[in-house]
Amino acid sequence: MKSDLDTRSRILATARKLFHSRSYADVGIKEICDGAKVQKGSFYHFFPSKRDLAMAVINDMSEDWAHGFVAEAFDKRLPPMERLDYMIDAAYYWQKAAHDIDGRVPGCLFGNLALEISTRDEVLRAKLKAVFEHARERFEETLDEAVENGMVPPLDAHATAEAMLAYLEGVILLAKTRNDPDVVLRLGPAIKTLRIERGGVN
Amino acid sequence: MKSDLDTRSRILATARKLFHSRSYADVGIKEICDGAKVQKGSFYHFFPSKRDLAMAVINDMSEDWAHGFVAEAFDKRLPPMERLDYMIDAAYYWQKAAHDIDGRVPGCLFGNLALEISTRDEVLRAKLKAVFEHARERFEETLDEAVENGMVPPLDAHATAEAMLAYLEGVILLAKTRNDPDVVLRLGPAIKTLRIERGGVN
Repeated sequence: MKSDLDTRSRILATARKLFHSRSYADVGIKEICDGAKVQKGSFYHFFPSKRDLAMAVINDMSEDWAHGFVAEAFDKRLPPMERLDYMIDAAYYWQKAAHDIDGRVPGCLFGNLALEISTRDEVLRAKLKAVFEHARERFEETLDEAVENGMVPPLDAHATAEAMLAYLEGVILLAKTRNDPDVVLRLGPAIKTLRIERGGVN
Repeated sequence: MKSDLDTRSRILATARKLFHSRSYADVGIKEICDGAKVQKGSFYHFFPSKRDLAMAVINDMSEDWAHGFVAEAFDKRLPPMERLDYMIDAAYYWQKAAHDIDGRVPGCLFGNLALEISTRDEVLRAKLKAVFEHARERFEETLDEAVENGMVPPLDAHATAEAMLAYLEGVILLAKTRNDPDVVLRLGPAIKTLRIERGGVN
């Protein structure tokens, strides 16, 4: 007999895959239950609503990231600017692996959800905003270190980090629209050219 | 009595507003008919399917853009790099105007649709890809002119134009996630710092 933990994990994994490869609105609870091989009653025991499920999916994926490739990319033993190259490579292989399997560039689940639900669900929007803010902080630490080490001329690290995150999301958006993971490889490295000067002047 | 043109226009305007403020999947044909005050039969006379409607919405909006603020921003009488500032300002005022009315940053309709439907509808994806390609060409012409005039050191104008478009979409994505139009104002001007060198080296 499967434990509760198994059941919850199966629901989460199924929802994550379906939300990512399609969209939040396009995937119904019945389809998730069927895919995870659980009864609806069991589903509602773990997730009282679809929004609760979406929150758990975002949490689950951001934790995986934080302990997985984001931790690897922003490893302090790497020279700061190489961390940005690592992030771009990781984004590329993520999209390419999905494309190799399904023939589709799925994009960034966080970016997808952000554009789909931000005007409709304040709770999910706030959660996604927080996920992006954590990512922005990794970029900012990297820039601070690069400036301290004299590798990059002084800049507004907070704003430039935000710009880099926006660029990464935009590059993945374009890769999804073109259904071509190579877009990430071609455009990604230019993330290092983005600069916002202190005082906001450009 | 309303003409056919009026009816079609009302459906298009209603669908565009609803798709933009919410999402494609979230808005049903009945709601669009109600909003446009047309019967379902009349709707299907103009748009055999929801996809046909989405195609028409994308066409309608990209034509409006091409003859509206994109034409103004990329006016050849403006110095090349000022055209980029104009694009950023236009994006800001677009998001701010919507936010002032609805309290929500709606994002870019093209970017929203691209992330929502690219894995699910090849026809709509191809259409959005073409819309982005037209925008990319405007950026490329601008960069070519800036390089010719010696305002910008030589670069890969095709790839840099693609990077600038990606950045613009990413900045609007972040503004939507934060529900804050000022993100566009703060990050937008850094679009001019993006560079991809000839030969793809960065």
